[in-house]
Amino acid sequence: MFFLKKILIFLSVFTLALCEEALESDPFPKPLIVEINEAQLKEWPVEEEEVQLQCTSWRVAVEANNLSPWEKIPEECADYVKEYMIGKGYELDLQRVSNEAKAFARSVYLSGDGKSAWIFDVDETLLSNLPYYADHGFGLEVFDSTKFGQWVEMGIAPAIESSLELYEEVLSLGFKVILLTGRSERHRSITVENLFQAGFREWDKLLLRSSEDHEKTATIYKSEKRNELVEQGYQILGNSGDQWSDLLGSSMSIRSFKLPNPMYYIS
Amino acid sequence: MFFLKKILIFLSVFTLALCEEALESDPFPKPLIVEINEAQLKEWPVEEEEVQLQCTSWRVAVEANNLSPWEKIPEECADYVKEYMIGKGYELDLQRVSNEAKAFARSVYLSGDGKSAWIFDVDETLLSNLPYYADHGFGLEVFDSTKFGQWVEMGIAPAIESSLELYEEVLSLGFKVILLTGRSERHRSITVENLFQAGFREWDKLLLRSSEDHEKTATIYKSEKRNELVEQGYQILGNSGDQWSDLLGSSMSIRSFKLPNPMYYIS
Repeated sequence: MFFLKKILIFLSVFTLALCEEALESDPFPKPLIVEINEAQLKEWPVEEEEVQLQCTSWRVAVEANNLSPWEKIPEECADYVKEYMIGKGYELDLQRVSNEAKAFARSVYLSGDGKSAWIFDVDETLLSNLPYYADHGFGLEVFDSTKFGQWVEMGIAPAIESSLELYEEVLSLGFKVILLTGRSERHRSITVENLFQAGFREWDKLLLRSSEDHEKTATIYKSEKRNELVEQGYQILGNSGDQWSDLLGSSMSIRSFKLPNPMYYIS
Repeated sequence: MFFLKKILIFLSVFTLALCEEALESDPFPKPLIVEINEAQLKEWPVEEEEVQLQCTSWRVAVEANNLSPWEKIPEECADYVKEYMIGKGYELDLQRVSNEAKAFARSVYLSGDGKSAWIFDVDETLLSNLPYYADHGFGLEVFDSTKFGQWVEMGIAPAIESSLELYEEVLSLGFKVILLTGRSERHRSITVENLFQAGFREWDKLLLRSSEDHEKTATIYKSEKRNELVEQGYQILGNSGDQWSDLLGSSMSIRSFKLPNPMYYIS
């Protein structure tokens, strides 16, 4: 029986290995079986599966706000994050958050005084900097504000389509849209231009960081801005952001929506 | 060449299929290849991969608090959730949250007045009801408070080992431990007994739901209890819970730790 097992394993490995060569151009999962022996069987295919497990666990910890501030993604998750960002995973997660937010927006009571607000962050929430991050290891490089500033100044960040859908829906439902971004005031005009080109064309306020805000954490800066909005009579019903620092703090929204972002962390 | 390809595919399928039978007792991933033909190759293994993607996306949305209240897990994710809970995924995520919490606990300043507190939820945070949920579809069945109450009364829920590690660490660092649970006062003695048997033997307070708390959402009930703690002079530095309703609301902790739980949702 054991002998039979060995022969069969050898045959599968052999034929599959050949298959793989023959199918070179097909999207066949990478080396299904490269080398295998009986001792390894119990844990096959350890390495790839283990990386997948570990990096998914890391990503879930990011999304659940369980990690302390981190500067760059774990080295061993470089391929995983890239695959997630450019594969189906990221888009699927974005679409899910958008759908959930739309369902909430449709269900929540708007007071009718024109003060029911939905807050949107900008980067990785309305606009995608994926073209930039694709050139910088999808989070594997430490954030470089000079280089990123140059990218921002190009004003060509595309819309996150599922966020544009939500944006249009909340506007049509009568929400006031507030854009609250960590971008600097000096990027106001290019940001407006970029937003327009990407299809975001109506808002009540676009709040950017002024010089006195630069030393503040995003959580503090954004909380202060939300406090001011509440003082001005706004009811903050929804809030969409890719960072927990967009969502937590004071004057929190009734419901908040955390868009996926395994590439960088902002305190 | 195409003919060769077909033969090779047939051989691999055939030998692997046989292998699978021969290896019945080995933890070999379920039907690697059951039936395959050239037309299907391009999208193989679409179905399994799609379920994996969709259910991971759903689970991430759960952990990121993006979903509105849900009664049971999606039918199509039944196997996925089961596999996650009894496979490596759940344990890995639990361990990661515990490690992150321990690192924070060690780094945070304790005032030394004996009022630095760490709050723990009980179910799926300190104690595991996995034996119960394994008998009830891992969240596929709608929650039945009578049946669950009978399970609680048995007092045999095992410890979540990684939480016990954290528990011991925060105690040894000088935190006051507060247990804040949605369990009813009528389960106090069995809960104490169960906690003791599982290794949790020291706490400052064990707060359970009294009769006037039963109509409140967990978020409100737990916020009220935290408010009282703050009024009593406690500084709530850490909070560990498997539900966002353990963590959000008023008098939130400096940092909170969301333990994984894709089986049920409590508002």
